[in-house]
Amino acid sequence: LDRGDTERLRDLLGALHPADIADLMGFLSADDREELLPHLDPEALAEILSELDTEIREEILEHVPSATLAKALGEMESDDAADVVDDLEADKRAQVLAAMPDVERAAIENTLAYEDETAGRLMQREVVAAPQFWTVGQTIDHLRRESDELPELFFDVYVVDPAYKPVGAAPVSHLLRSRRETPLAQIMEQVTEIPVDMDQEEVAYIFDKYHLISAPVVEPGGRLVGQITVDDIVGVIQEETEEDILALAGVSDAGRDAGFLGIVKSRLPWLLVNLVTEAVAVTVIGPFQPMIAKIVVLVMLIPIVSSLGGNAGTQALTVAVRAIATKELNAANAMRVIMRELAVGLLNGGAVGLMLGGALYLWQHDWKLSLVVFLAIIANLFVAALGGILAPIVLERFGRDPAVSSSVVVTFMTDFFGFLALLGIAALILL
Amino acid sequence: LDRGDTERLRDLLGALHPADIADLMGFLSADDREELLPHLDPEALAEILSELDTEIREEILEHVPSATLAKALGEMESDDAADVVDDLEADKRAQVLAAMPDVERAAIENTLAYEDETAGRLMQREVVAAPQFWTVGQTIDHLRRESDELPELFFDVYVVDPAYKPVGAAPVSHLLRSRRETPLAQIMEQVTEIPVDMDQEEVAYIFDKYHLISAPVVEPGGRLVGQITVDDIVGVIQEETEEDILALAGVSDAGRDAGFLGIVKSRLPWLLVNLVTEAVAVTVIGPFQPMIAKIVVLVMLIPIVSSLGGNAGTQALTVAVRAIATKELNAANAMRVIMRELAVGLLNGGAVGLMLGGALYLWQHDWKLSLVVFLAIIANLFVAALGGILAPIVLERFGRDPAVSSSVVVTFMTDFFGFLALLGIAALILL
Repeated sequence: LDRGDTERLRDLLGALHPADIADLMGFLSADDREELLPHLDPEALAEILSELDTEIREEILEHVPSATLAKALGEMESDDAADVVDDLEADKRAQVLAAMPDVERAAIENTLAYEDETAGRLMQREVVAAPQFWTVGQTIDHLRRESDELPELFFDVYVVDPAYKPVGAAPVSHLLRSRRETPLAQIMEQVTEIPVDMDQEEVAYIFDKYHLISAPVVEPGGRLVGQITVDDIVGVIQEETEEDILALAGVSDAGRDAGFLGIVKSRLPWLLVNLVTEAVAVTVIGPFQPMIAKIVVLVMLIPIVSSLGGNAGTQALTVAVRAIATKELNAANAMRVIMRELAVGLLNGGAVGLMLGGALYLWQHDWKLSLVVFLAIIANLFVAALGGILAPIVLERFGRDPAVSSSVVVTFMTDFFGFLALLGIAALILL
Repeated sequence: LDRGDTERLRDLLGALHPADIADLMGFLSADDREELLPHLDPEALAEILSELDTEIREEILEHVPSATLAKALGEMESDDAADVVDDLEADKRAQVLAAMPDVERAAIENTLAYEDETAGRLMQREVVAAPQFWTVGQTIDHLRRESDELPELFFDVYVVDPAYKPVGAAPVSHLLRSRRETPLAQIMEQVTEIPVDMDQEEVAYIFDKYHLISAPVVEPGGRLVGQITVDDIVGVIQEETEEDILALAGVSDAGRDAGFLGIVKSRLPWLLVNLVTEAVAVTVIGPFQPMIAKIVVLVMLIPIVSSLGGNAGTQALTVAVRAIATKELNAANAMRVIMRELAVGLLNGGAVGLMLGGALYLWQHDWKLSLVVFLAIIANLFVAALGGILAPIVLERFGRDPAVSSSVVVTFMTDFFGFLALLGIAALILL
């Protein structure tokens, strides 16, 4: 298919949605991708670029001539264009920016001036604004006149005061259904302003909570500088929960598609940290070695205690991390949640301890040993609950991301105190 | 504040966003909530009900008179109303439905007839549709005339053929900017139809991939029956990734706010499964007990091997589960991803094994023991990689949710083979 029939190829590409072409790109070899590129017009290229995975995008960007790229960027919304430019290498970036019209270049440079993962980076500068005193009719006439200058899609017309501060938003569906003579001030709704330096996680939270479709972004003075639409937010939510999931599993943020060495780099550090903390935890076993050499069945109980504690801790930890992320766990209810977790730990510890102690009695017929196990597991699951709920709360209070480092703390706590509880109680009761 | 000054209370409530009132409800005691209820008019109640956490909503629903509730449901979009009705107890549900106008009752009953977590349950029945041959002007006139019947907000006017099948969608912003005489057929865009029985996770995937704001939902025959908007999708994405996160941590789906016993019930089963698998895994240690009694330092290595294997397995597993959920891992690239994981396992195993073996040599000055540990860790991280990538792929192929049961399989594999590798290699080399 890739050899020869250019005409047909162009037709085929034209019929596909840009997101599907981007998917297709992922299946092609690098050479085939390179051959495909010249067949895409700047407009199609623009849409495909915003859809591609970072790895493939970077490779493609190297092969697109600066002039074509400059044209494609002109077709994109300012936030997507800035993302692409951000990926370019320094000299290519200079070339591409030089080939763009002044206004578009300025827009991209301004966007890049905001910090990563803030509202400023997320927003598009293209907005539709109208003065307060306009009527629906005047607004529609204005939109028809300026049709070419408008963003491709928009959901709200922001109503602004003379200082260009947003005072309300008229949803386009309200504009359509109202009579021409209705003043905008009458159909507009309250807006939730997003400060330009707000963190994107916070922005996503606000969108979700108030079910927003779009929201105006304002400078510190209150001036309207752009808008964020909900389709950008879907991406942010995916990204942020994804980060949490991977962080909880001890995979640092290097992209999933980062290639072999990237993957090693994203996982090895955590394994080494785990090695060190675990090595410290097992030192607890040292002094008990003579006892273990005598009562060798304890060896088989050590991994069980460690595994149960680890799992119970992960359960409490994960729920706490998510509750913090969705703001369901906060200073107001922290005490209640902590007490509840500890109670759950004790009850689950009792249940599991009874099971294991009972099973052990059937096997070894040693009620003292069963009692040791029963008590050790209750103690261990209590520590797991304590660590699982406290670690994320404390890390959060110190401004750290609770998803990233909580697991280390909790695994260490459950192993250290789990071994200590098992062997310590064994030493007291059995010796 | 809650005592006395009703006038002021109503004013205050009127000024708050329904989402904020819902938040406030979470902080109040059950008694205070009950007192607050009569002060909300049906419209406000309608909006607050869709925002509340399930637990609080169920409690509140018990105290709202059926007639008021029927009125409030009339104010809601059909999908939200169906959600609330679904939460009611049987007799209350009958009362409320009986108090509603026929049309609204039928809409709710129809929605509830679709299976949970499908497009049919997610969609709202209120849509704006226009025949193909209308012009922009005709459409706007129609919208102004029918203003009262329209959904509160809408983003697309669906263009339908005489059989009411969608043939395109005209974004409202395009309607606004086009001249009155433009035919709809000229400004409409291609639509992505959602079959009414599609799973909500699939719907969310399509919305994210094609950056949709709204999409028409069609019956098997192709007839337009409703629409899904992106704000519903934000909720679905949160819900689905949340389910994945909790499932990976061994917390079954009972809500986070389920109260003490609900929490125990959501976590205990997993701990018991863990107890059983771990009890099986440690049986591997049994035959080696005499050796362990002689070489007691092996006791301290067992938890380290187990912990490292568990962590490496969790890393591979989590990345695989997420890649399956976002469709980045599929039959086409599975083989390549598996080989890559195994290579990562070997390399990380080599690195960590070298560290631990080296540290052990400095302590015990026994190069044979260090060699045992080095080889055991490589073997263990290789098994962890194998289990971490294969378990979710196999479970997915058999139609199970890979997030739910993969962890059990992987933990068992890493412990069983980890102990076997450590003690087996020790027996070969040290005895």
